[in-house]
Amino acid sequence: MTLDELNALPGVTAAPDAATREYVYNHTMIRVKDLARALDFYTRVLGFSLIEKNDFPEAKFSLYFLALLADRGQIPQDPAERHRWRKSMPGILELTHNHGTEHDPAFTYHSGNADPRGFGHLCVAVPDIHAACARFEQLGVPFQKRLSDGSMKDIAFIKDPDGYWVEIIQFTPVA
Amino acid sequence: MTLDELNALPGVTAAPDAATREYVYNHTMIRVKDLARALDFYTRVLGFSLIEKNDFPEAKFSLYFLALLADRGQIPQDPAERHRWRKSMPGILELTHNHGTEHDPAFTYHSGNADPRGFGHLCVAVPDIHAACARFEQLGVPFQKRLSDGSMKDIAFIKDPDGYWVEIIQFTPVA
Repeated sequence: MTLDELNALPGVTAAPDAATREYVYNHTMIRVKDLARALDFYTRVLGFSLIEKNDFPEAKFSLYFLALLADRGQIPQDPAERHRWRKSMPGILELTHNHGTEHDPAFTYHSGNADPRGFGHLCVAVPDIHAACARFEQLGVPFQKRLSDGSMKDIAFIKDPDGYWVEIIQFTPVA
Repeated sequence: MTLDELNALPGVTAAPDAATREYVYNHTMIRVKDLARALDFYTRVLGFSLIEKNDFPEAKFSLYFLALLADRGQIPQDPAERHRWRKSMPGILELTHNHGTEHDPAFTYHSGNADPRGFGHLCVAVPDIHAACARFEQLGVPFQKRLSDGSMKDIAFIKDPDGYWVEIIQFTPVA
């Protein structure tokens, strides 16, 4: 589809209000049961960096902000500067940890992919999806959909420790 | 917290596998009931651009990819080039429309913020949160939390047409 065709679809404002010009789609927040397991998955398996942590002890929750960066040297060392930086750029992942949920064996969060549905997934793009999926297999990461499953042979879905789906795609056409 | 302290938290892999070096946190997917209403909200109210649409007529769904860009001139005109571009960068929002849901008055999606909880919100950062919230009020956008509500006076939450929460923050400290 051309951009003109996309911009003519019902509902689309082709030339948005100038007021929105500097708006940034900064982050997505998901709740996680076991913070250490979630941090392990997002940093070790997917390569995110933890860039900020905010505690709210009276309300018994903490927020963790992660970014997936090719160049980690760009992360500001100074906490105040790092705080402004993480609020100003796209592609941040926020994990909310309600303290103590990790100690309740029956506690689970809802992935959004069974009733009642809503949120679907996060997606990480990779340069080589065959290599990435082979690595995930080696690391014992659970798959929701392997490359070979179903009709779409160029995408996969893995699951994070809370069961949220993470789609894996490749930047370029999959051979 | 210093970066060294963040990197020493349980679960954190401070120096991720080189295999993840080019990984990009590309997008977040949410399902929407009424596509035209969702596109209107994300393009007119929040300033997103619709950059790709993929139809799956046999499975009766369509995917819409949006980006929130300060410079719309960077959107490639060529569809194939635009496809590769949208898969290679962070901060994309994917809307899934299951055809026909908009005709069922009883149909709703789940925001993730009532039981069963999971996904929490998207977040858009703005240069002037007072101006942004005044504009949302003027546009009749429903609020989940106004700036004046609760103890956190520097964040707000608005709701999209499906009831998903969109947090609004300001890049800089709020006066």
